[in-house]
Parts: sequence; structure tokens; C-alpha cells
Amino acid sequence: MKDVAALAGVSVGTVSNVLNQPDRVLESTRQRVEDAIRKLGWIRNESARQLRAGRSESVGIVVMDVANPYFVDLLLAAEETFYDRGYTVNLGNSDQHREREALLMRHFMRSRVDGVLLAPIGNSSGVTDELLRAGIPVVLLDRVSGTGLCSVGMDDIEGGRLAVHHLLEQGHKRIAFVGGPLGLAQVRDRARGARLAVANSGAHLDVVEVKTLDVEEGRKAAQHIARSDRGIRPTAVFAANDLIAIGMLQGFVAEGLSVPDDVAIIGYDDIDFAAAAAVPLSSIRQPRYEMGRCAAELLLKEITAAESGDEHQHEPVSFSPELVARISTLRTS
Amino acid sequence: MKDVAALAGVSVGTVSNVLNQPDRVLESTRQRVEDAIRKLGWIRNESARQLRAGRSESVGIVVMDVANPYFVDLLLAAEETFYDRGYTVNLGNSDQHREREALLMRHFMRSRVDGVLLAPIGNSSGVTDELLRAGIPVVLLDRVSGTGLCSVGMDDIEGGRLAVHHLLEQGHKRIAFVGGPLGLAQVRDRARGARLAVANSGAHLDVVEVKTLDVEEGRKAAQHIARSDRGIRPTAVFAANDLIAIGMLQGFVAEGLSVPDDVAIIGYDDIDFAAAAAVPLSSIRQPRYEMGRCAAELLLKEITAAESGDEHQHEPVSFSPELVARISTLRTS
Repeated sequence: MKDVAALAGVSVGTVSNVLNQPDRVLESTRQRVEDAIRKLGWIRNESARQLRAGRSESVGIVVMDVANPYFVDLLLAAEETFYDRGYTVNLGNSDQHREREALLMRHFMRSRVDGVLLAPIGNSSGVTDELLRAGIPVVLLDRVSGTGLCSVGMDDIEGGRLAVHHLLEQGHKRIAFVGGPLGLAQVRDRARGARLAVANSGAHLDVVEVKTLDVEEGRKAAQHIARSDRGIRPTAVFAANDLIAIGMLQGFVAEGLSVPDDVAIIGYDDIDFAAAAAVPLSSIRQPRYEMGRCAAELLLKEITAAESGDEHQHEPVSFSPELVARISTLRTS
Repeated sequence: MKDVAALAGVSVGTVSNVLNQPDRVLESTRQRVEDAIRKLGWIRNESARQLRAGRSESVGIVVMDVANPYFVDLLLAAEETFYDRGYTVNLGNSDQHREREALLMRHFMRSRVDGVLLAPIGNSSGVTDELLRAGIPVVLLDRVSGTGLCSVGMDDIEGGRLAVHHLLEQGHKRIAFVGGPLGLAQVRDRARGARLAVANSGAHLDVVEVKTLDVEEGRKAAQHIARSDRGIRPTAVFAANDLIAIGMLQGFVAEGLSVPDDVAIIGYDDIDFAAAAAVPLSSIRQPRYEMGRCAAELLLKEITAAESGDEHQHEPVSFSPELVARISTLRTS
């Protein structure tokens, strides 16, 4: 900014105004500052290009659902880390379609990004292998891998166990796990943790599979459960993520059921909207910012090692889940 | 899918299972299907490349805040349109930083995308000019331009007028507009509409500027307003977007004020979380899916025209806002 201010003959404060509140700056001044930025930016980019030929100074991040605030928080944290280190960040949303995930990874490969962070839909080894063969490091996000790559994830079995253990402590004997598709590792692990918690507890666990982890599917599942026979209706629900939980809350209320008195709900991820819901939702917190930053740091380390020819040891990093109990599981009567 | 099934010697249903529920398919079958996909994918990509040299079959979308579900809805609709037509979609989040916006646009230019959809932070003419000179079409999103480009936006002056007109109808005489930065065209237009509505109404409008349009800034603004002298405290708030409105709802409740009895709140965008808030929030609906799809169609038309050498007429398309009244503005006493 100092260089731009000097070249344009204005104060640093004026440069900042042009960047942030351009409408408050005289047109002629704005023009002068923008010209200076262009000139210097061009110089900087050119030198960078000469210094490290073949490098794009960009990274790719592919998430499986950009409509889920959980993934947005992960990618915002990673993105900030990358921009701070001078990288441009390309995002891709696989939207839970394997074909899109493959298209995006190949696109990033062709545009020669320096590395990729991937929150994979399932076993994506075919696509990641192609990148690795092309010398592009890949770090898995939202997944602790047994693949030998660097990865950042959370212990979802423990998370599922915590959620259902909390419902058992509240006295529930008939609990539903709502999530899907069950082929998704995260969903499978949360369900497995739920089963571990009910084992030998005398409680019963129903598994209700939904097509995707979104609000609409949660609404439908709640309608289905609300209309089931009262004698066999679960008194508590463990939703595989907060979007399902928010949808179920809406669905139960629409069917005339009260949360938590008729049915308790606990979600997963603890996105900001969970606390702001009509009935504040209990959830299993994932440390999203720490996870996103950690994954970005791992990728940057691997990129640097690849450039300098140093040895690199792949690391799987696992974070711990935490129970956040709110009104949606705390019975008033 | 038929070609893949034939090559792998399996049914189309099995191919679909491999794509969507791979864990339900035998490892050996999955391998065969994935090999076939890779083979055919490679052939298709290669032919495409030969047919249209210099084309990446990809487009870029840059939004100014991927943490705002309003922009996510816009980009999901656009994304679907592009993937349906065989394009890979590169996303970029400028996060309201002009430098990032410029970095992303230049990155897309260098990686030779076929076109860019840009939801700009402000006047981004410098950056868009570079792309246009490079022969890459740009369509503006969330903005009806006077720039002569194709663009899709909404009449925010009318939206602001509708919001405050609704508050006046509910009998409010002291209203606060909360939004920012005021340099942002969308915020400025909504404030202008608010001013038009109060003109000659006998009501008073305060303008409270916040730094960014997020939940945290809304919370802070509510705290500030709640602690102001009761005699001059506004009885209704028009928040420049729903994230601010959700934050203000949380902030007022934390300060012991009741919504809507002590203070009414209306937001803007009508994101899905607005209806699911602790007090369901009134809002001004933007037809996000239609806007996203429309912008994508405009860009595809322009890309096709550029390829075939046909004439192309730039079109600015403007959508109409709609009032959605919920409990947060409907006084119970």
C-alpha cells in the first residue's frame, strides 16, 4: 500500500479508501490510485512468474456441499490461510456428485494449481492418484484417512456416541438416527457411534435413511416420524447434521409436536444457525476454523517440501468432538 | 451412462450405484465401471479438446460472500445450469476484498475460462475490462448495470421502499436502517428506498452503518440500539440483509428486548434461515434461483455467440422484490 500511495502521490489512507469505500473518493484520485495498483500489481505478478516458472500460485479447494455452513466455515478458514500466504483460491462444489468431483479435480490439474484440499464424497482414490502422479499434493479435509495422505478430520464415531449418550442421560428409550446416504463415511461413522451408545443400555435405536443432508430432507423425515404410531414413535432424534436437525424442527412444529417435550432433537456440526433456530438446537461441535486452518497449513507445508525437494511425512490429524446442550434436548417437564 | 454400462458389461443401474452409492457395489465391479468412466471420459474430453481448441470448457463465478446463503443460492442455480451444459464451474469468494476480486478475475483469465459470472463488490470496471479485452465474456450478477454488460439484479430501491412502507403500515414512527458499508451499491439503494418511503410520512429514519453484512455485526448493532435512550430508541429496524437481521434478533433477545413487541425487525433476501429463526423473520424476497439461472443463461448465450461469431446484444435484466411478512414485524399488542 505504501508503494501504491507513493506512486499515486496520495496518502496510505486514501489508498485504503479507494480499496474499501471507493464512492467516497474523487473520481480523478480513484483513477490515479487504480492506475498505480495496476502498474505495481503487474510488476509483482511478473517477477513472481519469473521467479517460479510453472507455478500458478493458486490452490484448489473442493467441498461436497457449499450450501452447508459447516463446509463454508472450513473453507473460509483455509481460504484465509492461503490468501495470507499470497495464493489465489479456486473453489469447487461437488454437490455430492462424484462426476463433478472428478471434473473439478481434473480441471485443477489442467490449470496447474500448486495443491488441492479435498473434502471428498467417498473413496476418491482414483482422482487423487491422478493429481499425485502429476506432482500436485492433495490434503483430505473432513476425513481422517487411512490412505496415507495428509488429512484433517474428526472422530465421528465418538461424536455419534456423545450425541446418543446425551439423549440416554435425558431418559430417552426410543431414539431415531436420521441421516444419509449411509454410504457416506461421515454418516456411517456417526450411526456406528450411536449404536455403540445404545448397546446394553436397554434403549432402542431406529435408523432412518434420507437422501441428502439438507433442510428439506429433514422436514420430510420429521413428517414421516410425526405421523407414525404414538406407541412406537421415537421420543428423541439424533440428526446426522444441523441442516437435517433444523428441517426436522420445522417439520415437527408443522405437525403440531413440541420440541423438546414431545420429541427432543440433537444435531451435528454446531453451525451458527443451530443456536439461532426457533428452538436453540443441541449439537456436536466440530472445531471448524481450527480444522480448516490446520488442513491449509498441512498443504502449504507439503507444497514447500515439494518445491525444495525436502522429505515430507504425511500426517493424519484428528480433532475431538464436543457436546453442546441447548433447549432442544433439555426437557422442561 | 449407457456407454459406460456397455463398456463395463453391467446395467445402467449399477453404473448409477457406483456413482451414488459405491459402498453398495462389489469392489471388482466398481473397479470395472470406474475404468470405463475414465476411458470414455478421456475420449470425450480429448475429442472436445480437438473440436474446440483453446477452450477449457469451464466458467468462473465470483461472489462477494460465500458465507451468505443468498449468494450460495444464486451460485447453486447458476452452477446447475452450467454443469447441465457440460461446463466445469470454478468458484471464487472475494469476501468483500477488492484485491481478492482482482486476483480471482486475473486467475480465471490466465486459466482461460470461457466466461465469468461476477457478483461485484463495487465498480469493478478495471478488472472486467481486462477480461473483455482478452475475449472472455463477463455477466454481472446481483447488479443491474449501467455498464453496458449483460447483468441480472433486483430493484433494491423498490425493495427498500417496500420494507419500510410495511413498517410504517404497522404504525412505527421511529425506524432504523442498519447496513453497510454504505459504499456498497446494494446497501446504498436499499437505504435510498427506505428514505423514499419515510418522506412525508411524519416518521423518522436513523441510518446505522455497520462494517460488513454478517451476523456478528448485527448482534453488535442491536446491543448498541438496545442500550440507547428509550425516548429515542427506534421501535422498528430494517436490516440490509437477513444475516444482519438474524444477528439483531439474537442481540435484542440477549439485551432483554422482545421481538416484535419492543422492536420489530425486517430483513432482506429471504434466505431459508430467516423463516427458521427463533422469531420467524419478515424479509424482502429476492428470486434467487431464477436470478442465478437467468445469469447463467445470459453468459452461455454470450459464449455461444462469441464462438459462432454471431452478433450479441447485451441485456440488463431486473427482477422484482416481494414482501414476506412474518411474526417479527406483526405486533401482538
